[in-house]
Amino acid sequence: MHYLGIDIGGTSIKAGLVDENGRVLETRRAITITDDLNSFISTLAELVREFQKTTPIDGIGLGVPGLRSSRTHVVETAPNIRCLQHVNLEEALSNQVHIRTVSENDANVAAYAEFVCGAGIGIQQMVHLTLGTGVGSGLILNGSLFTGASGYAGEFGHTVISASPRRQNTGRLCACGNRGCVEMFVSATGIVMTAEEMMRDAPDSALHDVEWPLTSEKIYLAAAKGDATAQEVFRQTGWYLGIACANLINLLNLEAIVIGGGVIAAGDLLMKSTKQSAELHAFPAPFADCQIVQSKLWPDAGMIGAAMIARDR
Amino acid sequence: MHYLGIDIGGTSIKAGLVDENGRVLETRRAITITDDLNSFISTLAELVREFQKTTPIDGIGLGVPGLRSSRTHVVETAPNIRCLQHVNLEEALSNQVHIRTVSENDANVAAYAEFVCGAGIGIQQMVHLTLGTGVGSGLILNGSLFTGASGYAGEFGHTVISASPRRQNTGRLCACGNRGCVEMFVSATGIVMTAEEMMRDAPDSALHDVEWPLTSEKIYLAAAKGDATAQEVFRQTGWYLGIACANLINLLNLEAIVIGGGVIAAGDLLMKSTKQSAELHAFPAPFADCQIVQSKLWPDAGMIGAAMIARDR
Repeated sequence: MHYLGIDIGGTSIKAGLVDENGRVLETRRAITITDDLNSFISTLAELVREFQKTTPIDGIGLGVPGLRSSRTHVVETAPNIRCLQHVNLEEALSNQVHIRTVSENDANVAAYAEFVCGAGIGIQQMVHLTLGTGVGSGLILNGSLFTGASGYAGEFGHTVISASPRRQNTGRLCACGNRGCVEMFVSATGIVMTAEEMMRDAPDSALHDVEWPLTSEKIYLAAAKGDATAQEVFRQTGWYLGIACANLINLLNLEAIVIGGGVIAAGDLLMKSTKQSAELHAFPAPFADCQIVQSKLWPDAGMIGAAMIARDR
Repeated sequence: MHYLGIDIGGTSIKAGLVDENGRVLETRRAITITDDLNSFISTLAELVREFQKTTPIDGIGLGVPGLRSSRTHVVETAPNIRCLQHVNLEEALSNQVHIRTVSENDANVAAYAEFVCGAGIGIQQMVHLTLGTGVGSGLILNGSLFTGASGYAGEFGHTVISASPRRQNTGRLCACGNRGCVEMFVSATGIVMTAEEMMRDAPDSALHDVEWPLTSEKIYLAAAKGDATAQEVFRQTGWYLGIACANLINLLNLEAIVIGGGVIAAGDLLMKSTKQSAELHAFPAPFADCQIVQSKLWPDAGMIGAAMIARDR
């Protein structure tokens, strides 16, 4: 059996032909059209037909960057791809290609991939975090993908860890409109914010000489070259990520938190302080149950997970 | 069938004879002995025997204020009743009274009570919060009590909503050792902290004339009499409680958050700003799924839930 997993991102679409064990056999890419639904669907259909030239497809899974209703199968909001709003994408595509198609939130399918064939095999209670420009998260609870009342569960990036008092417009402002979201501290965006704050008190830091615009990659390179401020940026990021992990551990008593995304390229520089901070902030008994580990499937987790959802749903 | 639900608190023990529909037929109380296990067990056994004089007991449920392992059935930590640490309480009691006995975390049994016969009947995704001196919380996910990998899940009161940066000892210090826990903002303890902060900028507030020590009840009375600062304390508390609710809604896409505990005596003064803040901080789609309502069973939820756990487990 062969499944097509399609990971729909705000700038590009990644499609993979995946066997029933989650192995990727072939991949293709396309540019995401964000403002015209017909063109968007045609792009997906064209990708499907290219794969069909060599292999029969038994099912298609779509990872969608937005809130998808599990009651209506409609995408309620997709901030980065406006044309998807209020669309039943699985129906629209299957009408074109006549193959059974399912869809799910992109962070949820990534979590599902790690659960069925990645770092979370055999684990019953797990949260998967993808740290990129934003923070994606998906929950595996009692051995199943947990999607809540209507399919919207798992928006951990938009939980507040740094609340401002009422009527005080302090704190880091998130694209979602809130201040102090997890995403504002542990995403690539948050890392740059932390660096900009720290640079004010560190006039000698090499970060001042970095070519504009500052990015988390450039901060990492400065840290790797020994810049103390850049290193402290990652320790501070780990501190916040550890608090975020401890919130999940105290609330959900997890067996694993699996972390993927571009930010984990920072490796031990980030992960060591993350684990220390999580241990400091979580209760000892549930902390002892929980491993904090890196993703095994990133950057393919979304594609693989979408295919596995097509296999299993 | 008749079940005994025993809600074990740090200062007193409440025991109730409960029928199979969750109706309380008779209650008894005892003082909690915190430093001697044998005396503690004898107190429980004596309570059981008093009920047995009139009614045969089909099962006993214990609500325990601490982390109980679902793997070993042992109480791992019970900060307010030290003698329970590392004790299999259900075994210790059933050895004395020869009746099947089960135990569960006290906040979890309260959630279970609301789920089976209170404000959460028919609801599949729910969090129950008890706002007292501290914050208790229990999770109903996919129509079952969710206890996580080892039974420790549900410690929402000890998730951080106001993180301090690394190496800065700012923020409200919780008994758990962390700064900025939910409990430090929305419990009776947190309400007093908020009042003390606000009183510094309000020299004319009637709160300055309140007899020491300041309590959340006294602040409520001042608010009811029209003191603007005291009223603002509850609006600020609602602001934080709304952020906490939004964190749960965005993460878990709940159908209901049920709130009990002494603090809800503040009624609309607290609940109105809580709902406004939750709406402001949660995503619209999952917010629309979730009702925020008051407990129906408080202050008996713990006792009833313990009995219902004895019925169902």
